[in-house]
Amino acid sequence: MDSPNIHILSVRTALPGPPVDNVALAHRLGVGDSWARWAETGVGIRSRHLARDLESGEITHTLADLGEAAAREALAAAGLDAQDVDLLVMGTSMPDMLMPATVNIVADRLGIDGVPSYQVQSGCAGVVQAMEIAVQRLAGGSARTALVLGGDTWVKHFDPSGDIKHLSPAELVSMALAGDGAGCAVLSVEPRPGAAVVRRVRTRLVGGLPPAQTVEWFGAHAGTGAPAVTDDRGAVETQVPVLAAEAWRELLDDVGWKDSDVDAVLPPQHSGRVTERVCELLGVAESSVTSRVEETGNNGNGLLLFQLERALAGLGSGGRVVGLTVEATEWVRGGIAVEVL
Amino acid sequence: MDSPNIHILSVRTALPGPPVDNVALAHRLGVGDSWARWAETGVGIRSRHLARDLESGEITHTLADLGEAAAREALAAAGLDAQDVDLLVMGTSMPDMLMPATVNIVADRLGIDGVPSYQVQSGCAGVVQAMEIAVQRLAGGSARTALVLGGDTWVKHFDPSGDIKHLSPAELVSMALAGDGAGCAVLSVEPRPGAAVVRRVRTRLVGGLPPAQTVEWFGAHAGTGAPAVTDDRGAVETQVPVLAAEAWRELLDDVGWKDSDVDAVLPPQHSGRVTERVCELLGVAESSVTSRVEETGNNGNGLLLFQLERALAGLGSGGRVVGLTVEATEWVRGGIAVEVL
Repeated sequence: MDSPNIHILSVRTALPGPPVDNVALAHRLGVGDSWARWAETGVGIRSRHLARDLESGEITHTLADLGEAAAREALAAAGLDAQDVDLLVMGTSMPDMLMPATVNIVADRLGIDGVPSYQVQSGCAGVVQAMEIAVQRLAGGSARTALVLGGDTWVKHFDPSGDIKHLSPAELVSMALAGDGAGCAVLSVEPRPGAAVVRRVRTRLVGGLPPAQTVEWFGAHAGTGAPAVTDDRGAVETQVPVLAAEAWRELLDDVGWKDSDVDAVLPPQHSGRVTERVCELLGVAESSVTSRVEETGNNGNGLLLFQLERALAGLGSGGRVVGLTVEATEWVRGGIAVEVL
Repeated sequence: MDSPNIHILSVRTALPGPPVDNVALAHRLGVGDSWARWAETGVGIRSRHLARDLESGEITHTLADLGEAAAREALAAAGLDAQDVDLLVMGTSMPDMLMPATVNIVADRLGIDGVPSYQVQSGCAGVVQAMEIAVQRLAGGSARTALVLGGDTWVKHFDPSGDIKHLSPAELVSMALAGDGAGCAVLSVEPRPGAAVVRRVRTRLVGGLPPAQTVEWFGAHAGTGAPAVTDDRGAVETQVPVLAAEAWRELLDDVGWKDSDVDAVLPPQHSGRVTERVCELLGVAESSVTSRVEETGNNGNGLLLFQLERALAGLGSGGRVVGLTVEATEWVRGGIAVEVL
């Protein structure tokens, strides 16, 4: 089939506030400096941005707020209006509500109407699934310009200004990791000088492994006593690099690139430490790696867009980017291969 | 573009237990017979199936259980194995957890591995969005056989065996409406005698209307005091028929059918009463309408598959079906047009 190239015209991101470093977070949590050191060296996070004011405890941003901000900037950077958009796809694991879909709120605020709008429920692979669905639809000819959004906020699960005594060890790890943020890419069938072409995007279910991370939701009655968030760090640190390496090989084979053809590698961002291990296993030079999790915290479906935004800003014509994703909860591996025109 | 026809080889559904009639539910809720009569005449529901044992209060089925059961039956009816499946797409508004995705649990239980697997987060339009995504991908040639799942369970929000004094009027309406269930359709690029061809499937965002229904989720701390479920019956009963009529007209225009060409109409199923109003507005004969909500309760993303299963069972070669969906929460309208080979 003779499909058109799909171009990434722009990528923009939104963070909810100033960076919160480990010492500030440890202070707010009422834990010692050793926790702050552990967050940096053991987890690999230096700071994060939070959608909650650390002093007052007030929620300052919803996911819709962050998605809207990123989308407005991405549209402006692409020189397009909301009226040019004929498809929206968003990936998130923690939407603002179950209904309405956060993507529809973003669309409505932007004044977008009468177009298909999907929200993919997934861990960090959701933004790649969203990209995959958008590319498929653009390639099929039934849309020309798509917003692909990804992001997560942890505000319903973690309140650093509240009582943390009830938190499980997994939840304390997650709180050290957690960051809030969202990104948006503008995809189009129209070529544009300096745009990046999506050479390949794919995700694949990985069967047979138990979930290493889970996130629960509660209804009106809440409080089943079960932990709301689980995180098996051992399984994450062992499995993610292996599956990332598989995704890397599959993508390069698909697109016909050698390892050395890739100018920028965007590894999975489960933590600074996982990212390091992935890069070791792939054997990629540190200089080619774009990692953001150390500064933003883990904002889930946002992260790949934060990485992509930075990587594309640093590449000229012919530059090649491979972004990888591994979802550690009924597992998914995948990624995206992009080349600047 | 010369896309292949996409065929629905089978549709099967799963309900979690025996029907619970209004008198039994009223008795369990500790409300009077007048409530039971109101549920029947005011809401238009005679019975529902619940994923919770009404006496013990125990949850008997997860959404993954129901999705798995429907998928196994649908595959058997299509004469296919799980190994034939190379794509899964599920629509739900209330997944079992936020992570992992319920669709991935279903896939893993069926032994499906290494394929793309998406879960669309949406109100009742999610199953049509799932169908749309699957059809797009099958038509694009990157998959040949897809499972499209849809379903919802209300167990986290409604516990008829518990204390209902805290429920708002909207929540009492929702509890009368609520049913649990899931369905699965097997879609394929391969023709098969007696299979139905998807002539058109579409969903469109409807901007500018406030949500008439919302479903909240709570994190570890729960209990913000805000109602978990809101339902503006007035807005639902006013807007849904209007938007359903628009979706009906758009679909028929797209596919080039006259009103009288349609043998089976599957109206939106927000309640028995809404369904009646939709049919009045469309001017379709009662004999051509397939409605299930009166007996199953509103199982959200499952319902269209329950309707489609029944409608297809009653049609021979050349039979034409139009299924409509309206999502009343940051609104979506859409539907599917299907023709039996």
